[in-house]
Amino acid sequence: MADWDAQQYLKFEDERTRAARDLLAQIPVTEARGVVDIGCGPGNSTELLARRWPQARITGIDTSADMLRQARERLPQATFIEANVSHWAPPVGTDVVFANAIFQWVPDHLNQLKRLTAALPTGGVLAVQMPDNMNEPSHVMMREVAQLPQFQERLAHVLDARGELPKPGAYYDALRPLCQRLDIWHTIYNHVLDDAGAIVEWVKGTGLRPFLDPLDAPERKEFLEAYKTRIAASYPPQADGKVLLCFPRLFLLVVK
Amino acid sequence: MADWDAQQYLKFEDERTRAARDLLAQIPVTEARGVVDIGCGPGNSTELLARRWPQARITGIDTSADMLRQARERLPQATFIEANVSHWAPPVGTDVVFANAIFQWVPDHLNQLKRLTAALPTGGVLAVQMPDNMNEPSHVMMREVAQLPQFQERLAHVLDARGELPKPGAYYDALRPLCQRLDIWHTIYNHVLDDAGAIVEWVKGTGLRPFLDPLDAPERKEFLEAYKTRIAASYPPQADGKVLLCFPRLFLLVVK
Repeated sequence: MADWDAQQYLKFEDERTRAARDLLAQIPVTEARGVVDIGCGPGNSTELLARRWPQARITGIDTSADMLRQARERLPQATFIEANVSHWAPPVGTDVVFANAIFQWVPDHLNQLKRLTAALPTGGVLAVQMPDNMNEPSHVMMREVAQLPQFQERLAHVLDARGELPKPGAYYDALRPLCQRLDIWHTIYNHVLDDAGAIVEWVKGTGLRPFLDPLDAPERKEFLEAYKTRIAASYPPQADGKVLLCFPRLFLLVVK
Repeated sequence: MADWDAQQYLKFEDERTRAARDLLAQIPVTEARGVVDIGCGPGNSTELLARRWPQARITGIDTSADMLRQARERLPQATFIEANVSHWAPPVGTDVVFANAIFQWVPDHLNQLKRLTAALPTGGVLAVQMPDNMNEPSHVMMREVAQLPQFQERLAHVLDARGELPKPGAYYDALRPLCQRLDIWHTIYNHVLDDAGAIVEWVKGTGLRPFLDPLDAPERKEFLEAYKTRIAASYPPQADGKVLLCFPRLFLLVVK
Protein backbone atom coordinates (compact mmCIF):
# COMPACT_ATOMS: atom_id res chain seq x y z
CA MET A 1 0.00 0.00 0.00
CA ALA A 2 0.92 3.69 -0.23
CA ASP A 3 3.85 4.87 1.88
CA TRP A 4 3.36 8.07 3.84
CA ASP A 5 5.35 11.08 4.82
CA ALA A 6 4.33 11.17 8.49
CA GLN A 7 5.41 14.75 8.99
CA GLN A 8 3.49 15.89 5.94
CA TYR A 9 0.50 13.93 7.12
CA LEU A 10 0.60 15.47 10.56
CA LYS A 11 1.03 18.93 9.12
CA PHE A 12 -2.02 18.22 7.02
CA GLU A 13 -3.94 17.86 10.27
CA ASP A 14 -3.13 21.39 11.18
CA GLU A 15 -5.71 23.48 9.36
CA ARG A 16 -4.25 26.68 10.69
CA THR A 17 -0.82 26.35 9.06
CA ARG A 18 -2.13 25.22 5.67
CA ALA A 19 -2.24 28.76 4.25
CA ALA A 20 1.34 29.49 5.37
CA ARG A 21 2.52 26.24 3.75
CA ASP A 22 0.61 26.99 0.55
CA LEU A 23 2.21 30.43 0.38
CA LEU A 24 5.69 29.03 1.06
CA ALA A 25 5.25 26.37 -1.65
CA GLN A 26 4.88 29.06 -4.31
CA ILE A 27 8.15 30.87 -3.53
CA PRO A 28 10.61 29.85 -6.26
CA VAL A 29 13.78 30.86 -4.34
CA THR A 30 16.05 27.86 -3.61
CA GLU A 31 18.84 29.63 -1.71
CA ALA A 32 18.34 32.84 0.23
CA ARG A 33 20.71 34.98 2.26
CA GLY A 34 18.25 36.66 4.58
CA VAL A 35 14.64 35.60 5.21
CA VAL A 36 12.26 37.71 7.32
CA ASP A 37 8.97 36.60 8.87
CA ILE A 38 6.78 39.66 9.41
CA GLY A 39 4.26 39.22 12.22
CA CYS A 40 6.03 36.05 13.30
CA GLY A 41 3.88 35.51 16.41
CA PRO A 42 5.15 32.56 18.48
CA GLY A 43 7.33 31.40 15.57
CA ASN A 44 5.31 28.64 13.88
CA SER A 45 5.66 30.15 10.42
CA THR A 46 9.28 31.16 11.19
CA GLU A 47 10.00 27.48 11.81
CA LEU A 48 8.66 26.61 8.35
CA LEU A 49 10.99 29.23 6.84
CA ALA A 50 14.01 27.93 8.79
CA ARG A 51 13.29 24.41 7.56
CA ARG A 52 12.94 25.57 3.95
CA TRP A 53 16.12 27.70 3.95
CA PRO A 54 18.43 26.08 6.53
CA GLN A 55 21.44 28.16 5.38
CA ALA A 56 19.70 31.55 5.55
CA ARG A 57 19.77 34.18 8.29
CA ILE A 58 16.24 33.97 9.64
CA THR A 59 14.63 36.97 11.34
CA GLY A 60 11.17 37.28 12.85
CA ILE A 61 9.55 40.60 13.66
CA ASP A 62 6.45 41.20 15.75
CA THR A 63 4.97 43.93 17.97
CA SER A 64 4.28 41.60 20.91
CA ALA A 65 7.12 41.04 23.37
CA ASP A 66 5.31 37.99 24.71
CA MET A 67 5.04 36.37 21.27
CA LEU A 68 8.71 37.11 20.63
CA ARG A 69 9.70 35.44 23.91
CA GLN A 70 7.91 32.26 22.84
CA ALA A 71 9.43 32.46 19.37
CA ARG A 72 12.98 32.77 20.78
CA GLU A 73 12.46 29.66 22.88
CA ARG A 74 11.13 27.74 19.94
CA LEU A 75 13.81 28.77 17.45
CA PRO A 76 17.01 29.83 19.28
CA GLN A 77 19.05 29.97 16.04
CA ALA A 78 16.86 32.75 14.60
CA THR A 79 16.82 36.46 15.46
CA PHE A 80 13.60 37.98 16.79
CA ILE A 81 13.07 41.73 16.84
CA GLU A 82 10.28 43.82 18.34
CA ALA A 83 9.19 46.09 15.52
CA ASN A 84 6.12 47.42 13.74
CA VAL A 85 6.21 46.62 10.04
CA SER A 86 4.93 50.11 9.22
CA HIS A 87 8.24 51.55 10.44
CA TRP A 88 10.51 48.69 9.41
CA ALA A 89 12.59 48.13 6.29
CA PRO A 90 14.28 44.90 5.17
CA PRO A 91 18.03 44.96 5.87
CA VAL A 92 20.49 44.59 2.98
CA GLY A 93 20.67 40.96 1.85
CA THR A 94 17.02 40.15 2.50
CA ASP A 95 15.93 37.80 -0.29
CA VAL A 96 12.57 36.71 1.10
CA VAL A 97 10.01 38.70 3.08
CA PHE A 98 7.21 36.42 4.29
CA ALA A 99 4.02 37.87 5.77
CA ASN A 100 1.36 35.37 6.77
CA ALA A 101 -1.95 36.80 8.05
CA ILE A 102 -0.55 40.16 9.19
CA PHE A 103 -1.09 42.87 6.56
CA GLN A 104 -4.87 42.90 7.00
CA TRP A 105 -4.15 44.67 10.31
CA VAL A 106 -1.65 47.17 8.87
CA PRO A 107 -3.04 50.64 8.05
CA ASP A 108 -2.71 51.59 4.38
CA HIS A 109 -1.19 48.19 3.67
CA LEU A 110 -1.19 48.63 -0.10
CA ASN A 111 1.34 51.45 0.19
CA GLN A 112 3.32 49.49 2.77
CA LEU A 113 3.57 46.60 0.30
CA LYS A 114 4.81 49.01 -2.37
CA ARG A 115 7.43 50.39 0.02
CA LEU A 116 8.67 46.90 0.97
CA THR A 117 8.79 45.77 -2.66
CA ALA A 118 10.83 48.83 -3.56
CA ALA A 119 13.27 47.99 -0.74
CA LEU A 120 13.95 44.41 -1.95
CA PRO A 121 16.96 43.46 -4.12
CA THR A 122 16.33 42.28 -7.69
CA GLY A 123 15.10 38.68 -7.50
CA GLY A 124 13.90 39.15 -3.95
CA VAL A 125 10.44 37.88 -3.02
CA LEU A 126 7.63 39.40 -0.99
CA ALA A 127 5.09 36.69 -0.13
CA VAL A 128 1.85 37.75 1.52
CA GLN A 129 -1.30 36.02 2.73
CA MET A 130 -4.32 37.80 4.23
CA PRO A 131 -7.75 36.53 5.31
CA ASP A 132 -10.34 37.94 2.92
CA ASN A 133 -13.41 36.89 4.85
CA MET A 134 -15.15 40.13 5.75
CA ASN A 135 -18.18 39.09 3.68
CA GLU A 136 -18.39 35.57 5.09
CA PRO A 137 -21.23 34.94 7.58
CA SER A 138 -18.58 34.44 10.30
CA HIS A 139 -17.71 38.14 9.99
CA VAL A 140 -20.99 39.60 8.75
CA MET A 141 -22.63 38.24 11.92
CA MET A 142 -20.06 39.93 14.20
CA ARG A 143 -20.99 43.26 12.69
CA GLU A 144 -24.69 42.44 12.86
CA VAL A 145 -24.50 41.72 16.59
CA ALA A 146 -22.35 44.82 17.16
CA GLN A 147 -25.20 46.87 15.70
CA LEU A 148 -27.74 45.62 18.25
CA PRO A 149 -28.93 48.54 20.44
CA GLN A 150 -27.10 47.33 23.56
CA PHE A 151 -23.71 47.20 21.78
CA GLN A 152 -24.04 49.79 19.04
CA GLU A 153 -22.49 52.77 20.75
CA ARG A 154 -19.64 50.91 22.43
CA LEU A 155 -18.62 49.02 19.27
CA ALA A 156 -19.11 51.72 16.62
CA HIS A 157 -15.33 52.26 16.30
CA VAL A 158 -14.76 48.52 15.70
CA LEU A 159 -17.19 48.52 12.78
CA ASP A 160 -15.09 51.20 11.09
CA ALA A 161 -11.75 49.54 11.79
CA ARG A 162 -11.02 46.72 9.35
CA GLY A 163 -12.62 47.07 5.94
CA GLU A 164 -12.73 44.77 2.95
CA LEU A 165 -9.49 44.00 1.14
CA PRO A 166 -8.91 45.72 -2.21
CA LYS A 167 -9.67 43.60 -5.30
CA PRO A 168 -6.86 41.70 -7.07
CA GLY A 169 -6.77 44.36 -9.81
CA ALA A 170 -5.87 47.05 -7.26
CA TYR A 171 -2.89 45.03 -5.98
CA TYR A 172 -1.90 44.38 -9.60
CA ASP A 173 -1.90 48.07 -10.54
CA ALA A 174 -0.02 49.06 -7.38
CA LEU A 175 2.69 46.41 -7.42
CA ARG A 176 3.17 45.32 -11.04
CA PRO A 177 5.27 48.35 -12.06
CA LEU A 178 7.71 47.57 -9.22
CA CYS A 179 8.49 43.92 -9.98
CA GLN A 180 9.25 41.40 -12.70
CA ARG A 181 6.57 38.93 -11.65
CA LEU A 182 3.37 39.20 -9.66
CA ASP A 183 0.96 36.41 -8.90
CA ILE A 184 -2.34 37.05 -7.12
CA TRP A 185 -4.81 34.37 -6.11
CA HIS A 186 -7.43 33.46 -3.55
CA THR A 187 -7.81 30.10 -1.89
CA ILE A 188 -11.09 29.36 -0.16
CA TYR A 189 -10.55 26.68 2.45
CA ASN A 190 -13.37 24.66 3.98
CA HIS A 191 -12.35 23.86 7.53
CA VAL A 192 -14.25 20.93 9.01
CA LEU A 193 -15.24 21.88 12.55
CA ASP A 194 -17.31 20.02 15.14
CA ASP A 195 -20.20 22.47 15.37
CA ALA A 196 -21.22 26.15 15.40
CA GLY A 197 -19.56 26.52 18.82
CA ALA A 198 -16.24 25.52 17.27
CA ILE A 199 -16.60 28.29 14.68
CA VAL A 200 -17.10 30.78 17.52
CA GLU A 201 -13.98 29.42 19.24
CA TRP A 202 -12.03 29.67 15.96
CA VAL A 203 -12.75 33.39 15.47
CA LYS A 204 -12.54 34.26 19.19
CA GLY A 205 -8.75 34.37 19.01
CA THR A 206 -8.70 36.57 15.90
CA GLY A 207 -11.55 38.50 14.25
CA LEU A 208 -13.82 38.56 17.28
CA ARG A 209 -11.26 40.06 19.67
CA PRO A 210 -11.80 43.73 18.85
CA PHE A 211 -15.54 43.23 19.40
CA LEU A 212 -15.13 41.50 22.77
CA ASP A 213 -12.29 43.57 24.21
CA PRO A 214 -14.35 46.71 24.98
CA LEU A 215 -17.10 44.71 26.74
CA ASP A 216 -17.36 43.56 30.34
CA ALA A 217 -17.93 39.89 31.26
CA PRO A 218 -21.78 39.81 31.21
CA GLU A 219 -21.84 41.81 27.98
CA ARG A 220 -19.36 39.43 26.38
CA LYS A 221 -21.55 36.51 27.32
CA GLU A 222 -24.55 38.21 25.77
CA PHE A 223 -22.60 39.14 22.63
CA LEU A 224 -21.32 35.59 22.23
CA GLU A 225 -24.77 34.09 22.66
CA ALA A 226 -26.32 36.37 20.04
CA TYR A 227 -23.38 35.67 17.73
CA LYS A 228 -23.50 31.91 18.21
CA THR A 229 -27.23 31.77 17.39
CA ARG A 230 -26.55 33.54 14.10
CA ILE A 231 -23.54 31.33 13.33
CA ALA A 232 -25.60 28.18 13.93
CA ALA A 233 -28.20 29.43 11.43
CA SER A 234 -25.56 30.39 8.84
CA TYR A 235 -23.56 27.16 9.03
CA PRO A 236 -26.06 24.29 9.00
CA PRO A 237 -24.60 20.91 9.94
CA GLN A 238 -23.47 18.45 7.27
CA ALA A 239 -24.88 14.91 7.13
CA ASP A 240 -22.39 13.80 9.83
CA GLY A 241 -23.18 16.76 12.10
CA LYS A 242 -19.94 18.68 11.37
CA VAL A 243 -19.87 22.18 9.92
CA LEU A 244 -17.73 23.59 7.10
CA LEU A 245 -16.12 26.94 7.86
CA CYS A 246 -15.59 28.53 4.47
CA PHE A 247 -12.49 30.72 4.73
CA PRO A 248 -11.26 32.80 1.76
CA ARG A 249 -7.66 34.02 1.83
CA LEU A 250 -5.81 36.32 -0.55
CA PHE A 251 -2.24 35.51 -1.63
CA LEU A 252 0.30 37.80 -3.27
CA LEU A 253 3.64 36.66 -4.62
CA VAL A 254 5.89 39.51 -5.72
CA VAL A 255 9.21 38.75 -7.42
CA LYS A 256 11.20 42.00 -7.57
CA MET B 1 21.32 37.52 -4.34
CA ALA B 2 18.64 34.85 -4.30
CA ASP B 3 19.41 31.62 -6.14
CA TRP B 4 16.70 30.22 -8.37
CA ASP B 5 15.33 26.88 -9.32
CA ALA B 6 15.23 27.47 -13.08
CA GLN B 7 12.80 24.64 -13.70
CA GLN B 8 10.47 25.89 -11.01
CA TYR B 9 10.75 29.38 -12.40
CA LEU B 10 9.95 28.25 -15.91
CA LYS B 11 7.08 26.12 -14.71
CA PHE B 12 5.80 29.18 -12.92
CA GLU B 13 5.51 30.80 -16.35
CA ASP B 14 3.07 28.17 -17.40
CA GLU B 15 -0.27 29.37 -16.09
CA ARG B 16 -2.03 26.33 -17.46
CA THR B 17 -0.20 23.73 -15.36
CA ARG B 18 -0.37 25.68 -12.09
CA ALA B 19 -3.60 23.99 -10.95
CA ALA B 20 -2.21 20.50 -11.64
CA ARG B 21 0.94 21.35 -9.67
CA ASP B 22 -1.10 22.79 -6.79
CA LEU B 23 -3.20 19.63 -6.66
CA LEU B 24 -0.13 17.38 -6.79
CA ALA B 25 1.55 19.36 -3.98
CA GLN B 26 -1.27 18.44 -1.58
CA ILE B 27 -1.00 14.66 -2.07
CA PRO B 28 0.81 13.31 1.03
CA VAL B 29 1.83 9.96 -0.54
CA THR B 30 5.64 9.56 -0.78
CA GLU B 31 5.83 6.13 -2.42
CA ALA B 32 3.10 4.72 -4.61
CA ARG B 33 2.76 1.44 -6.47
CA GLY B 34 0.36 2.44 -9.20
CA VAL B 35 -0.53 6.01 -10.20
CA VAL B 36 -3.27 6.76 -12.74
CA ASP B 37 -3.83 10.02 -14.62
CA ILE B 38 -7.49 10.21 -15.67
CA GLY B 39 -8.06 12.36 -18.73
CA CYS B 40 -4.31 12.47 -19.36
CA GLY B 41 -4.58 14.34 -22.68
CA PRO B 42 -1.17 14.69 -24.36
CA GLY B 43 0.58 13.67 -21.12
CA ASN B 44 1.64 16.97 -19.50
CA SER B 45 0.11 16.10 -16.14
CA THR B 46 1.23 12.46 -16.51
CA GLU B 47 4.78 13.76 -16.76
CA LEU B 48 4.39 15.61 -13.45
CA LEU B 49 3.18 12.35 -11.85
CA ALA B 50 6.11 10.35 -13.30
CA ARG B 51 8.56 12.91 -11.92
CA ARG B 52 6.93 12.85 -8.49
CA TRP B 53 6.78 9.02 -8.22
CA PRO B 54 9.66 7.74 -10.37
CA GLN B 55 9.32 4.17 -8.98
CA ALA B 56 5.58 3.85 -9.61
CA ARG B 57 3.71 2.20 -12.49
CA ILE B 58 2.25 5.22 -14.26
CA THR B 59 -0.91 4.85 -16.37
CA GLY B 60 -2.76 7.51 -18.33
CA ILE B 61 -6.31 7.06 -19.58
CA ASP B 62 -8.15 9.22 -22.09
CA THR B 63 -10.94 8.86 -24.66
CA SER B 64 -8.94 10.47 -27.49
CA ALA B 65 -6.70 8.16 -29.54
CA ASP B 66 -4.88 11.21 -30.89
CA MET B 67 -4.09 12.55 -27.41
CA LEU B 68 -2.90 9.10 -26.34
CA ARG B 69 -0.55 8.90 -29.34
CA GLN B 70 1.07 12.18 -28.29
CA ALA B 71 1.24 11.04 -24.67
CA ARG B 72 3.01 7.78 -25.63
CA GLU B 73 5.63 9.71 -27.57
CA ARG B 74 6.18 12.08 -24.69
CA LEU B 75 6.39 9.44 -21.97
CA PRO B 76 7.39 6.05 -23.43
CA GLN B 77 7.91 4.49 -19.98
CA ALA B 78 4.23 4.97 -19.01
CA THR B 79 1.19 2.98 -20.12
CA PHE B 80 -1.60 4.80 -21.95
CA ILE B 81 -5.04 3.26 -22.33
CA GLU B 82 -8.05 4.40 -24.33
CA ALA B 83 -10.90 4.32 -21.84
CA ASN B 84 -13.83 6.34 -20.58
CA VAL B 85 -13.58 6.96 -16.84
CA SER B 86 -17.31 6.26 -16.45
CA HIS B 87 -16.65 2.62 -17.32
CA TRP B 88 -13.20 2.29 -15.81
CA ALA B 89 -12.05 1.04 -12.42
CA PRO B 90 -8.59 1.41 -10.86
CA PRO B 91 -6.60 -1.86 -11.07
CA VAL B 92 -5.39 -3.53 -7.86
CA GLY B 93 -2.37 -1.69 -6.47
CA THR B 94 -3.47 1.79 -7.53
CA ASP B 95 -2.42 4.16 -4.74
CA VAL B 96 -3.06 7.48 -6.47
CA VAL B 97 -5.83 8.45 -8.90
CA PHE B 98 -5.19 11.94 -10.30
CA ALA B 99 -7.86 13.77 -12.28
CA ASN B 100 -7.01 17.27 -13.43
CA ALA B 101 -9.76 19.22 -15.23
CA ILE B 102 -11.73 16.19 -16.40
CA PHE B 103 -14.63 15.39 -14.08
CA GLN B 104 -16.57 18.54 -15.00
CA TRP B 105 -17.26 16.75 -18.31
CA VAL B 106 -18.25 13.42 -16.73
CA PRO B 107 -22.02 12.81 -16.36
CA ASP B 108 -23.12 12.30 -12.75
CA HIS B 109 -19.54 12.88 -11.60
CA LEU B 110 -20.42 12.90 -7.89
CA ASN B 111 -21.45 9.25 -8.07
CA GLN B 112 -18.43 8.42 -10.22
CA LEU B 113 -16.17 9.92 -7.55
CA LYS B 114 -17.92 7.79 -4.92
CA ARG B 115 -17.42 4.67 -7.04
CA LEU B 116 -13.71 5.40 -7.57
CA THR B 117 -13.15 6.16 -3.88
CA ALA B 118 -14.81 2.88 -2.94
CA ALA B 119 -12.48 1.06 -5.36
CA LEU B 120 -9.24 2.46 -3.83
CA PRO B 121 -7.17 0.59 -1.23
CA THR B 122 -6.95 2.00 2.31
CA GLY B 123 -4.52 4.92 2.22
CA GLY B 124 -5.09 5.43 -1.50
CA VAL B 125 -5.69 8.97 -2.76
CA LEU B 126 -8.17 10.39 -5.23
CA ALA B 127 -7.07 13.91 -6.23
CA VAL B 128 -9.44 15.97 -8.35
CA GLN B 129 -9.45 19.46 -9.82
CA MET B 130 -12.31 20.97 -11.83
CA PRO B 131 -12.88 24.45 -13.25
CA ASP B 132 -15.73 26.08 -11.33
CA ASN B 133 -16.17 29.09 -13.57
CA MET B 134 -19.71 28.78 -14.93
CA ASN B 135 -20.67 32.04 -13.19
CA GLU B 136 -17.63 33.98 -14.35
CA PRO B 137 -18.23 36.54 -17.15
CA SER B 138 -16.08 34.35 -19.45
CA HIS B 139 -18.81 31.69 -19.30
CA VAL B 140 -21.90 33.78 -18.60
CA MET B 141 -21.18 35.65 -21.85
CA MET B 142 -20.99 32.42 -23.89
CA ARG B 143 -24.47 31.56 -22.76
CA GLU B 144 -25.70 35.11 -23.36
CA VAL B 145 -24.49 35.04 -26.97
CA ALA B 146 -25.92 31.54 -27.47
CA GLN B 147 -29.32 32.96 -26.57
CA LEU B 148 -29.25 35.59 -29.32
CA PRO B 149 -32.05 34.89 -31.85
CA GLN B 150 -29.67 33.75 -34.62
CA PHE B 151 -28.03 31.08 -32.42
CA GLN B 152 -30.74 30.19 -29.93
CA GLU B 153 -32.23 27.15 -31.64
CA ARG B 154 -28.95 25.63 -32.76
CA LEU B 155 -27.25 26.00 -29.39
CA ALA B 156 -30.13 25.18 -27.02
CA HIS B 157 -28.66 21.72 -26.26
CA VAL B 158 -25.30 23.28 -25.31
CA LEU B 159 -26.93 25.54 -22.73
CA ASP B 160 -28.33 22.46 -21.01
CA ALA B 161 -25.09 20.48 -21.12
CA ARG B 162 -22.65 21.55 -18.41
CA GLY B 163 -24.22 22.96 -15.26
CA GLU B 164 -22.74 24.49 -12.16
CA LEU B 165 -20.64 22.29 -9.89
CA PRO B 166 -22.22 21.13 -6.63
CA LYS B 167 -21.22 23.12 -3.52
CA PRO B 168 -18.38 21.88 -1.26
CA GLY B 169 -20.94 20.60 1.27
CA ALA B 170 -22.42 18.23 -1.33
CA TYR B 171 -19.01 16.68 -2.05
CA TYR B 172 -18.41 16.46 1.69
CA ASP B 173 -21.65 14.57 2.36
CA ALA B 174 -21.12 12.22 -0.60
CA LEU B 175 -17.46 11.34 0.00
CA ARG B 176 -16.77 11.79 3.71
CA PRO B 177 -18.37 8.47 4.79
CA LEU B 178 -16.07 6.61 2.36
CA CYS B 179 -12.69 7.94 3.46
CA GLN B 180 -10.51 8.82 6.43
CA ARG B 181 -9.68 12.31 5.22
CA LEU B 182 -11.31 14.74 2.82
CA ASP B 183 -10.11 18.19 1.95
CA ILE B 184 -12.13 20.51 -0.29
CA TRP B 185 -11.00 23.94 -1.41
CA HIS B 186 -11.27 26.46 -4.23
CA THR B 187 -8.42 28.42 -5.68
CA ILE B 188 -9.27 31.47 -7.76
CA TYR B 189 -6.39 32.24 -10.08
CA ASN B 190 -5.94 35.59 -11.80
CA HIS B 191 -4.27 34.91 -15.12
CA VAL B 192 -2.58 37.95 -16.62
CA LEU B 193 -3.43 38.04 -20.33
CA ASP B 194 -2.60 40.57 -23.03
CA ASP B 195 -6.14 41.70 -23.79
CA ALA B 196 -9.77 40.62 -24.23
CA GLY B 197 -8.78 38.77 -27.42
CA ALA B 198 -6.41 36.59 -25.39
CA ILE B 199 -9.29 35.63 -23.07
CA VAL B 200 -11.27 34.53 -26.12
CA GLU B 201 -8.28 32.48 -27.33
CA TRP B 202 -7.90 30.95 -23.84
CA VAL B 203 -11.50 29.62 -23.73
CA LYS B 204 -11.62 28.72 -27.45
CA GLY B 205 -9.78 25.48 -26.80
CA THR B 206 -12.02 24.48 -23.87
CA GLY B 207 -15.33 25.99 -22.75
CA LEU B 208 -16.17 27.67 -26.04
CA ARG B 209 -15.81 24.54 -28.19
CA PRO B 210 -19.31 23.09 -27.70
CA PHE B 211 -20.74 26.49 -28.70
CA LEU B 212 -18.64 26.83 -31.85
CA ASP B 213 -18.70 23.21 -33.06
CA PRO B 214 -22.35 23.23 -34.30
CA LEU B 215 -21.85 26.49 -36.26
CA ASP B 216 -20.53 27.04 -39.80
CA ALA B 217 -17.62 29.40 -40.50
CA PRO B 218 -19.55 32.69 -40.95
CA GLU B 219 -21.69 31.94 -37.90
CA ARG B 220 -18.60 31.21 -35.82
CA LYS B 221 -17.16 34.54 -36.83
CA GLU B 222 -20.36 36.29 -35.80
CA PHE B 223 -20.53 34.38 -32.50
CA LEU B 224 -16.92 35.20 -31.67
CA GLU B 225 -17.38 38.89 -32.45
CA ALA B 226 -20.46 39.18 -30.23
CA TYR B 227 -18.65 37.24 -27.52
CA LYS B 228 -15.45 39.29 -27.73
CA THR B 229 -17.38 42.57 -27.40
CA ARG B 230 -18.95 41.29 -24.18
CA ILE B 231 -15.62 39.99 -22.86
CA ALA B 232 -13.95 43.34 -23.50
CA ALA B 233 -16.68 45.07 -21.47
CA SER B 234 -16.47 42.52 -18.62
CA TYR B 235 -12.67 42.53 -18.30
CA PRO B 236 -11.54 46.16 -18.40
CA PRO B 237 -7.80 46.66 -18.90
CA GLN B 238 -5.48 47.20 -15.93
CA ALA B 239 -3.24 50.27 -15.71
CA ASP B 240 -0.66 48.55 -17.97
CA GLY B 241 -3.27 47.47 -20.55
CA LYS B 242 -3.32 43.78 -19.53
CA VAL B 243 -6.44 41.97 -18.34
CA LEU B 244 -6.88 39.62 -15.38
CA LEU B 245 -8.77 36.43 -16.16
CA CYS B 246 -10.29 35.38 -12.85
CA PHE B 247 -10.50 31.58 -12.88
CA PRO B 248 -12.01 29.65 -9.92
CA ARG B 249 -11.17 25.96 -9.62
CA LEU B 250 -12.46 23.36 -7.19
CA PHE B 251 -10.06 20.85 -5.60
CA LEU B 252 -10.89 17.60 -3.82
CA LEU B 253 -8.37 15.48 -1.96
CA VAL B 254 -9.76 12.15 -0.80
CA VAL B 255 -7.62 9.87 1.37
CA LYS B 256 -9.36 6.48 1.56
